[in-house]
Order: sequence, then C-alpha cells, then structure tokens
Amino acid sequence: MTPEPLPHHDGSPLHVSTAHPTLGETVTLRLRVPQQYPELRNVMVRSNPDHEPHWDTATDLGILNGWRWWQAQVKVANPRHGYRWLLIHDEDTLGGSAPTIEWLNQSGIHSGEVLDAEDFALLAYPAPPLWLYDGVMYQIFPDRFARSAGADSREIPDWAEPADWADPVNPVMPSRVCQFYGGDLDGVVEHLDHLQQLGINILYLTPFFPGASNHRYDASSFEQVDPLLGGEEALIRLTDAAHQRGMKVIGDLTTNHSGDRHEWFQRALAEPDSDERGFYYFTDDGDYESWLGTASLPKFDWSSQKLRRAFIEGPDSVVAKWLKPPFNLDGWRIDVANMTGRLRDVDLNAEVRQILRRTMEEVKPDSILLAESTNDATSDLTGDAWHGAMTYPSFTRPLWAWLAEPTGQSYTTAQGSQETEPWFFGQPLAGIPRGDAHSFREAVERFNAVIPWRIRLGNMHPLDTHDTARFATHATGERVAVAVGLQHSLPGLPTLFAGDEFGLTGEDGEISRTPIPWSSSHQPEVAERLRLYREFIGLRRRHPVLSTGAMRWLFSDADTIIFIRESEQESLLVFASTSPDEQTTSLPVDLVCSSPLNPAIDVQKLYGAVEFRVEDDHLLLRSGGVRFGMWQLPGVKVPR
Amino acid sequence: MTPEPLPHHDGSPLHVSTAHPTLGETVTLRLRVPQQYPELRNVMVRSNPDHEPHWDTATDLGILNGWRWWQAQVKVANPRHGYRWLLIHDEDTLGGSAPTIEWLNQSGIHSGEVLDAEDFALLAYPAPPLWLYDGVMYQIFPDRFARSAGADSREIPDWAEPADWADPVNPVMPSRVCQFYGGDLDGVVEHLDHLQQLGINILYLTPFFPGASNHRYDASSFEQVDPLLGGEEALIRLTDAAHQRGMKVIGDLTTNHSGDRHEWFQRALAEPDSDERGFYYFTDDGDYESWLGTASLPKFDWSSQKLRRAFIEGPDSVVAKWLKPPFNLDGWRIDVANMTGRLRDVDLNAEVRQILRRTMEEVKPDSILLAESTNDATSDLTGDAWHGAMTYPSFTRPLWAWLAEPTGQSYTTAQGSQETEPWFFGQPLAGIPRGDAHSFREAVERFNAVIPWRIRLGNMHPLDTHDTARFATHATGERVAVAVGLQHSLPGLPTLFAGDEFGLTGEDGEISRTPIPWSSSHQPEVAERLRLYREFIGLRRRHPVLSTGAMRWLFSDADTIIFIRESEQESLLVFASTSPDEQTTSLPVDLVCSSPLNPAIDVQKLYGAVEFRVEDDHLLLRSGGVRFGMWQLPGVKVPR
Repeated sequence: MTPEPLPHHDGSPLHVSTAHPTLGETVTLRLRVPQQYPELRNVMVRSNPDHEPHWDTATDLGILNGWRWWQAQVKVANPRHGYRWLLIHDEDTLGGSAPTIEWLNQSGIHSGEVLDAEDFALLAYPAPPLWLYDGVMYQIFPDRFARSAGADSREIPDWAEPADWADPVNPVMPSRVCQFYGGDLDGVVEHLDHLQQLGINILYLTPFFPGASNHRYDASSFEQVDPLLGGEEALIRLTDAAHQRGMKVIGDLTTNHSGDRHEWFQRALAEPDSDERGFYYFTDDGDYESWLGTASLPKFDWSSQKLRRAFIEGPDSVVAKWLKPPFNLDGWRIDVANMTGRLRDVDLNAEVRQILRRTMEEVKPDSILLAESTNDATSDLTGDAWHGAMTYPSFTRPLWAWLAEPTGQSYTTAQGSQETEPWFFGQPLAGIPRGDAHSFREAVERFNAVIPWRIRLGNMHPLDTHDTARFATHATGERVAVAVGLQHSLPGLPTLFAGDEFGLTGEDGEISRTPIPWSSSHQPEVAERLRLYREFIGLRRRHPVLSTGAMRWLFSDADTIIFIRESEQESLLVFASTSPDEQTTSLPVDLVCSSPLNPAIDVQKLYGAVEFRVEDDHLLLRSGGVRFGMWQLPGVKVPR
Repeated sequence: MTPEPLPHHDGSPLHVSTAHPTLGETVTLRLRVPQQYPELRNVMVRSNPDHEPHWDTATDLGILNGWRWWQAQVKVANPRHGYRWLLIHDEDTLGGSAPTIEWLNQSGIHSGEVLDAEDFALLAYPAPPLWLYDGVMYQIFPDRFARSAGADSREIPDWAEPADWADPVNPVMPSRVCQFYGGDLDGVVEHLDHLQQLGINILYLTPFFPGASNHRYDASSFEQVDPLLGGEEALIRLTDAAHQRGMKVIGDLTTNHSGDRHEWFQRALAEPDSDERGFYYFTDDGDYESWLGTASLPKFDWSSQKLRRAFIEGPDSVVAKWLKPPFNLDGWRIDVANMTGRLRDVDLNAEVRQILRRTMEEVKPDSILLAESTNDATSDLTGDAWHGAMTYPSFTRPLWAWLAEPTGQSYTTAQGSQETEPWFFGQPLAGIPRGDAHSFREAVERFNAVIPWRIRLGNMHPLDTHDTARFATHATGERVAVAVGLQHSLPGLPTLFAGDEFGLTGEDGEISRTPIPWSSSHQPEVAERLRLYREFIGLRRRHPVLSTGAMRWLFSDADTIIFIRESEQESLLVFASTSPDEQTTSLPVDLVCSSPLNPAIDVQKLYGAVEFRVEDDHLLLRSGGVRFGMWQLPGVKVPR
C-alpha cells in the first residue's frame, strides 16, 4: 500500500504560535492539509473549556507548496487546554447525501468518536526553560564516574568495601551496595572536556547526599554534600565549571521516602513527639509504612505541613536550597515520583508536585523538574509540574523490544544465583519481549497521544539507566546506530547513562554501574562508539528541528520506520530499518516534501549508507540489513 | 477471515468474585483462555498499587468445557485498583528463543506496551445499589407527560402560554420555553400502569422545582415542588405509588448554575454582604460568571463552604432533603455535571461530586447518582462519585451514525429560521455523521476501555433525550428494532425518553418534547412500537445476563456486529446487521460456546427472523437487510 499524505498538526512552531501561552491568551493554530486531499467545506477547532465543547472556525489561508493551510484563533481557557480539529468534507467530492467528517487529534485521523484524553493540548502553566528543549542529557552515578586526586586522602567509612577502578562490579549483596570505587564530584569536573566534546549540555547527578551505600539513595541528610564526594565545595566547583561551559547540572531527590538513617527519621524514632514523627506514617505500635515494605526506606506522609515546609515548600526548603547560590543547581530529577504522596485511599501526588514546582518557580524559574515514573507516567504528565519524566514505555522499552537481541546470557542476582531469564525493566516478562518496527511506532504513538506536546519534548529518552541493563549488552554495530539515531531524532530528551559512549555492557542495573574505563578510549571499538555518539549528538545540537520541529510519520512496517521532522528552516527525513534483505521503500514525493525535489540541490545526506533516489515522483530508499539514515530537505513554507 | 476465540476477562461475576470490594479486600480474578490457544507458561496479574507495578501469579485451574481457567488473588490497594493480565507463552509452542508475552486489558489483547488507563479496574468506593443494574429507566419531562384532573383548577402564571395537549410544539422563542401544556406529577401517577406494563422500574423526572419555563431548569428555589406540578404532596403521592409498584424515582438537579430567579441569586443581587453572594462568581463591578455567558444562568462558586452546606453537604442540604421522608427520592441525575466546579484554573469537580455522594451515602445509601456529561465523560467516571453518566459518545451517537438515515428534512431554529443541516448532539457536524457497524463497535470499545466495569453498567443508554432529536425521526421498522435491541442487550442502563414507545419523532431537542399522545396507543403503528419496547424490556428484565453478564465481541464488519452476554446460568447471543444483501456469517462453534451444540436442545430463539444453523462445527447466521436476532444458549461452566 502506498502511503498518502494526511492532514497534519502538532504542537511545533509550524502549527502553534506559542507553546507557552498564559491563561486567557489567544493562540493561533494551523492545520495543513495535502493539496490533493478531498475538498473540505469547513474546518473547525473543538476546544473543551471547563469540559464543555466550544467551536472556533478556521480560515482557509490557501495553498502553498502542496499544502492547504487552515488557521484558527483559540483562547486558552484552562491550564491544560485540549483541542482537536474537525474537518467537514464537501459532499460533492465524496458523493452521498451527507458530508463526512473527520477528527484530527494526537492519535491521528478518525472518522468516529474520539477521547478527550487524546486531544492536542496547550499548557498555560509557567513555561519550562527553553534550554531543556535544546538539551542532551548525561546521567552520572558519582561513585563510578571518575576519581579525583583528592579522593585518595579521604577516610573510607565502615560500611564501604573499597574497590580498585578496574575491579569488576559485584552484584551480590552486600557488595552490591557497599562496593566503593570512590568516584567524586571533582572527578566530574576533571572530565568536563570529555562531556563537552561529546556535545553534552545537561548533567544529571544521581544523589550526592551522604549515605551508607554507593548509590546514596539512602541519604542521612539533605543538608550536605557527601564528604566522600568532596563536600559542598566540590559541588560548587562542579556547577561553576559546568556553567562556564554552558552546561547545566541537575540533582536527584527522593520524595516518596527517605533512608532510615536520615536525620528526620532518626529524630522521628527517638522522639515520638517531634515534628519529624509526623513526616512518616507511624502506627501506634511504632511500625511505619515503607517503600514496597522495605523497612530501611520509610515512606513520607505528605499530609504533614511541616514536612512540606522543610522539604519542598518555599525558599528555605531543601528543594530551594540547592538551586540557590552558591550551589546553583539547574533543576531536579525526582526519584520514585510516581508513588510520592500515594498510599491506599490517599493521593496527594498532584499537590506535592505542584508545590515543589511552585517553589522552584519562586527561587529559580530557569530550572527543570523531571519525574522518575518508569512505567506509564501519562496520568501525571498533565503539565502541572513535571516538565518530563524518566519513563520507559514510550521509547526505551519498545526500542529494546524491536532492536535488542536476546542473548540467553545468564546474570547474577542479588542473592548470588545465576538467572537466565532476567526481568525486563522490572517486569517478570521472562526476557526481552519481542517487538518490531511497527510495534515501536505504535507504542510511541499510543503514549504520546495522551501527553501534551511540550511535555513530550521533555520526556527523557535513555537507552538504559543506572537501574537497567545496558542496551549494548544486546546490540552491536548498526543496531546501536539505529538506537542512538532514534534517540537523537525523535521528540524527547536524549539521555546517556555515563559509559554508554564507551560501549559498556551489563545484564542488569547493578552490573552495569561499571566505573568508566577512561583509558579505553583509544581502543578501536570504543573510539568508534564515541564517534557514533559525537556524531548523533552533534546532529541533534546543530539541527534544532530534531528537538522542537514537527513530527510526521511517513511509513512503517514490521522492519522499517520512516518519519520527518519539520520546521520553516529545514526538514530532516529519518529512516530506520532492520530489514534482513535488501529492499526499496517507495514514498510519493508529495508525502515527504511538496515541492518538486531535485536531489542534487535539495537533499543533503546527514547520516548513513542508505541509497536515496527520486524517480517518477517517488522517493526510493534502498537498503539492506540494519540501517539508519538521515537527510536534510528544504523546510516547510508557511503562509504569512 | 474466520474469527477465533481469544482469552477473555471482564468485570462480570464469571471473572471477578465481587464487583464491590472494600479497600484491602482480596478479590479472586479469573481469566479464561480458549483450549486451542497456544500453550501458556505462566499467567500473572499486574496491579499498580500507588502507581508502582505489583505482580500476582495465577493458578491454572485446568480445562472445563473448552476453556482453560486461570485464577489469581489480588488485594485491593487503592479505591480504583487497576489491573491487567500478563500471558507468557511457552517458547516451545511458538518457536524462537524468547517467549512471547501478551497483555489483556479492557481494550483487548496486545503484544506491545499498554496504557494504565485501559486497565481493568476494581472499585473500593461504596457500592451502588444493585437495583441500578436491574434497571430500565424512563425519562419524564413533567410538562409533557400527562395532565391530571387537578391541573385544570390551577392558575396559569404570567410567563406561561397555555397550550392544548394536541397543539404542536412551537420551537421558536419565546414559545420554546413558555408553551405550557400543564402536565403534572399526578399525571405521572395516573399512568404508572402504562410504565409498569412496559417493564420500566426507574423513573427519572427532569426538574420539578418551581421555575419560569416549561423545562424548569431555571428553578427559583430547591425547597419546593412547583405548585403547577401539584406541589410537595404530589411528589409524595408519586414516590409512594411508584415504590408500591417496585419502581424507583430520581430527580434532576443542576450543580453548575442556578437560574437568575433563584432565591439564592436574588439574595446575592440584593445583599452584597449576604452569604449567597459568595455562592456565585461576582466581580467588583457586579458582573458575574454564567453558563456559556448566558446571564440568566449564574454559575456557582464551589469554593463557598456555605454553598456546599446549603446545597450538597450533610443531612440538611438540598441534596439530602428530597431523599429523606416524606419525599423518598431514590437518587439524582445531575445536570451539567461536566462543568460543575470548573472555571479557568479552578477545578473543584471531583471534590463537589465526592461530597455530594458522601451526603447521599449518609442519608440514603440505597440511592443512585448519575452525571449529565453528554460528551466524553470518561475522565470523571473514576468511580469516586458518579454511578454512571448520561453520555452520548459511547453508545448513542455512534448508534445514530450507524443506524439513522439522514432525511435532509428541515427543522425550525429558536429564531424561527429553517435549517436543513442540524447540529448533531450539540456538535456542528453538518448533519448526522456517517458510521457503520464496525465504527459503532470501535466507539463502544474505545470509551469503555477507560471506564471501570461497574460504572459502565450504570451509564445511560438512551436513543434520544429531552435535549436531542428523536431517533425515530431518522429510522423506521427494523432499524428501530436493531437500535432498541442493542439498547437492551449491551452493558449499560437502557433509558427511554417518554414517548419513544409511541414512536414520536422530532428534529431537535425542543420539537421532540411532544406531549404523550395517550389516545394513539391503539393505532397499529403505535401498538407495534409499544409491543417492540415491551418485548425488549421484558427480555432485559427476564435475562439478568443482559444487565450484568460478561460481554464478548465475536464478530464485526461494516454491516454486522455479533456479541455474546454470558453468565453461569445462560449465554445470550446477539446479532445486529444492516447488510443490504442476504448473507451468511459463519462462526466456529468454539467461539460461541465451547461444548458441542445441539440446536434442537441447546438453542432457544428469543428474538428476530435470522436463520440459525449449525454445520460442521460452524454456526451459520443467515439474514438479509436490517435485522436483529437474539438466542439463548447454555451458560458458561466455571471450575469450583
């Protein structure tokens, strides 16, 4: 079946006059309809102010370069203003007595009833900083990134099992959490050159608070930087040095629970009449709620106003402290954001996240707030607080399902036994589930259909994180190129876990916390992987259309997806395939680019070894095996 | 393509030990998998307590009558406890190195990532009264239903334009709202025989409060019954008489706004320092918010605690008053529930509806609460308050799109002009949109995928209401039978608008408020229509499986849908088609009923002229033209 161009709208600048309106502001929306599409008698925008439909009629702006543009003015009525397009066909062009209608929403074109949840959405909440949308993020697990000279003179605490940088990671308890490599924040400062050369501009540090584990998610206080990492002074040196290079730095806070060594919890235990007692869910017999029943991680009770003031509310809170001078963090990633404030019949999650963001707006509006919500995060991604999420089902997991090759390799559990059927991202799926190119596209579409555009842009796109197996364990060569290519060309925030660029592997989230093998960078395979990342990050940074441009699917089957990112300046055509055999995909030129296309003048190859030809008004893409390709084409002309 | 049986689960008693658990209760869930389905290695239930996945392993109960049953115990963790099934295939039966997984949720079987929103859902909110699920509802617009002898002696108020019962409805303003036929509550009492013979057991009265219009949505007080309807005594007579016949009676309240003649608003206008001033959104210059800018309908400000206490909160509120003796109403339908408490950046809707329901639980737990939310109501149908909604996109509108025939007939607008392209249920769609059998099924599935089962059962299924054109305007003969048949056989509350059973027509929601033509009941066409309704309501009432049984789709194409409702006692096979030509639909017997089927013994025809045969393990349904059919088959055997 030859794909045909369809009417298109999304939240990008080609179609929306601003992604950051205020309540009551009038926003201009634009729909483009292929010139050859059946004649439309009328086009309207259906908004839903206060949950009651409202209709604005669009104006026909005429045809430009193969697209007919319709434009409507919509007044933003609610903080999340949902809308969809109504297309009324001309009965004369279709025959029959009644005209046909179609709806266009975030899940595509429909002739039947559609859900409000899939509406396009304008957000009138305070705008996130624009640098988020220009970002490529890099996740650092401080103990494993780099060790500065200063680290040698520090005393190793009792809980730690010192390890040499070259020692293998031991995933068996207690080494799992005690094995201590001694990476520190000055180690990060010393390697900013590496990150800058890579093209990174946002560093995300997993917790830097003092703890009794290598991961430090069991902080004993939120008031200090772990002296083992160099203390507060080291953090200041890091944020200063990063800022000098135009990089941002964000931290990591857990709002669902604290460690049981945390000073708040210790006080709560010792003094039943203390304010801190109310920070947790204690029962009369001294028992308390904890994260998944893990007694060392007592759960916060967010009905406590004093907890709110200490932790998240106002300029004296923990959340505020680290954003302000002299620390100057640029935002937070919130651990276990999905469970925060939720217990049985209590759900304070929206309240907590909104207060948290309000504090950030107050002390540093130019900061970002991301939620860890590793499964379906969509119900919390309304735009009211989170700028995006570390969430796996809308990109990472379906990418694995398509591209990762199950190896059947065994791995070692926390208890030391061998397992050949690892869970998959915390799910007992007996291995990596099978998917293909089309199911990848379906997952991307299904989840993004219910997320406002600007939040979609803020969702992290990692191939792996400190909590997962490494993608490269299950993929080599071109498969990695396809994955990294998609990571950097789909709407969303490309996010590397430190070491991805060295080709590190690891079968689970413990084993893959390997110390960065700095000395390996000249090994041919590592150098090749570094080159690959530099190339894609460079493309992403040089072509803003990959960050904020329109997103149109052009084609998908079991092996191949093709889409295009579009702005007024340029269009980037993206091709990704795992076809086992050589094959040619044929697309009508109209579908891609509505002006006649002269490949010699209009098309510039940006990546890959896929053959690109134009023949008889069709664009032919020939490739065999696993391949990623990217081409630059002319931008989209917009009527003025 | 021959349809094949698929694994099945829904909220019905075959699959869930209770639809009304309490928080913390353990519920038994059952999945049935066709015997011939590829071997499953493991089956689990994925719940999502506090938004973090939790896994319960199912037990294989073995094969019974063609189905393999799996059973899991799940502890209800949140008031809305979402869950889905994980099916892990045995790699040996499928080949390949990794097993394949599938998810089963409310939108069906998926091999890729699925949304939490489409999970099955247990609700631990207080249970609705079971009579709701045994109900067939009848909507009465009091001015147009029946006039008792007492009506003649009442003084007609100034605003009213008296009309004779046989006068045509005048849809032009001001007659539109002033034309006064004088129906009253004793008129309803006098016709309870008719309703009982029809099989009705829930009466829904549009407002009975005093107003200055024939529709009474502009109540001047919530403290009285309009004397024109017979006053409080008449309401007591009605609820007493109805209750004696085993019928329930519910009222109609608007919580979004009042009329500007309402005593609260009058006081707010007259006394700027009054409590009532705070019931509305007044600005400093004396202006106020109103419904869609209609000044005569000032909008309530639900941040007012005093409004809450007067109207919805506690045993002295309006909501409570009419449920208690001597009035004894059995519940409320809430007008404009969708907009209630919503304005710009304020959304108190959940709070208001929860308080409202809490009050009802307090004074009369055996009562029902339904929301008017005529478009997509799903975001409010979480189970926290509404037992169901008057909502059109999940049944009524797609049914029209499939079954109604556009006539091109003109109708008269409020301004008196002729229009040939009416809006469709408040949407400017230039007429009735085109749909078919398959798009009807898709709409039913899409909306119900995100609604908890027990709320789905409470959603009203009208063909039309006092706000819409009459369905019979656009359908005759068998088309009406198909529509009424589906209304009474799909999960949802069958709801007649008074006069549907007389075959009334009308091109819009004004014109169709025709006084009931009582004397016409012996005209052959009317008698035939009455017989049709009596037959389907009778089937519904005699076969509880149509109310609360499992719901499985067996087949759909552009012309035809086939589904089955199942319980341990019986299974009802339902066929609906608009095929223009004679055709035979072939279904494997396995798909319908897993034991060998002997038509002579096992099958009883309940409705319709569709030929039913069994041949070579296939069930053949032959029909031509527009047809509805229903058969009783053996129930589903459940392992003990």
